[in-house]
Amino acid sequence: MYQPPGYGSSHHQHHHGGSMHSTHSTYSARHSRPAGYSYQAAPPPGVDPTLWAYFSGVDTDRSGSITANELQQALVNGNWTKFDLDTVKMLMSIFDVDRSGTINYNEFAGLWKYIQDWQNVFRHFDRDHSGTIEGHELSEALRSFGYNLSPNLLRLIEQKYASAPVSGYGPPPGITFDRFVRACVVVKTLTEAFQRSDVSGTGYVQFSYEQFMSIVLSAP
Amino acid sequence: MYQPPGYGSSHHQHHHGGSMHSTHSTYSARHSRPAGYSYQAAPPPGVDPTLWAYFSGVDTDRSGSITANELQQALVNGNWTKFDLDTVKMLMSIFDVDRSGTINYNEFAGLWKYIQDWQNVFRHFDRDHSGTIEGHELSEALRSFGYNLSPNLLRLIEQKYASAPVSGYGPPPGITFDRFVRACVVVKTLTEAFQRSDVSGTGYVQFSYEQFMSIVLSAP
Repeated sequence: MYQPPGYGSSHHQHHHGGSMHSTHSTYSARHSRPAGYSYQAAPPPGVDPTLWAYFSGVDTDRSGSITANELQQALVNGNWTKFDLDTVKMLMSIFDVDRSGTINYNEFAGLWKYIQDWQNVFRHFDRDHSGTIEGHELSEALRSFGYNLSPNLLRLIEQKYASAPVSGYGPPPGITFDRFVRACVVVKTLTEAFQRSDVSGTGYVQFSYEQFMSIVLSAP
Repeated sequence: MYQPPGYGSSHHQHHHGGSMHSTHSTYSARHSRPAGYSYQAAPPPGVDPTLWAYFSGVDTDRSGSITANELQQALVNGNWTKFDLDTVKMLMSIFDVDRSGTINYNEFAGLWKYIQDWQNVFRHFDRDHSGTIEGHELSEALRSFGYNLSPNLLRLIEQKYASAPVSGYGPPPGITFDRFVRACVVVKTLTEAFQRSDVSGTGYVQFSYEQFMSIVLSAP
């Protein structure tokens, strides 16, 4: 049984299973800097030097915190496509805990672990090592997270998060890393919102338009 | 009263109000081709030569139809950012009528008009000519389409479709052209699905999990 990565109390645990740079989704910390510029700020006391180096690599303008744009530049899928803006916004909304609009070092530690955990999940379910999650791999991943979705819902998710439009012939294209994470978070968010509303446990909920739209528009 | 562009019987009407290349969202038909290659296929009889030239410009590999990738390369927002994959997929799903996975010339005529119509809508509501739609402009646009949304829902849409993450201080960033179109189509799709389910007109609907998820995952 696999659990989808969470972002609760485990923020500051370090995870050492990672093969960060050889995975299907690579977090490419960029160390390039202006010519002649060789200053590397030393990590503050008590800070993991490796993580600090990654943080400094992503913080390309050395402002001490990471903007959404810096994050989007640093995050790439296994096929070198950039993360969708919607995934970057989702990550910022989860990890920008102090709502400053940027990710500081402490927030980065949580983000980093979250991405590593999802990379492990992605690798685990990408059975054929294609670098994308196909329909049956998606079903298996969601089932292992505890979602027993109908074939109809699985097909809708497969189509919506496919990394290219669906052609009329053959199955949809696979799902890249960043869209897979988003799909899983969306399913989790919507399912939990439905369950919270289903107070009597009948399997049916009554929504006003306001409630319905509010739930849908709050999901990533 | 503005109507959001539709894609019904008006597919093949041509629209001549356009200032295609001076708008906030530019459809940059690319005419570049391999060096020494100067062949330009003549338009088939009865075909609008201008539209044919645009079509040929987007169809960079001269296959006679436009792939999602060619479409994404050709479509840019006013700030030169590319359209989101999700917007490209939405356009393909609307205009790839024969479900071939590509856009042929006839399908392109519909797509072209749709984008022109939305450009006019976008320009109309971008009152301050900033190139993006801000909160109050969004409210006005949706209200003119007949959606009287609560401040809460408007805020959620403004945040979800903002073209950058929301910082804790100040209003969200504006919405670029492609995300504005997607936001409006999503509101329309969800509202119509809700209204179809509200058969008794009480303003409340009862959804099973399957129905709820199916509606949400079918929206762009």
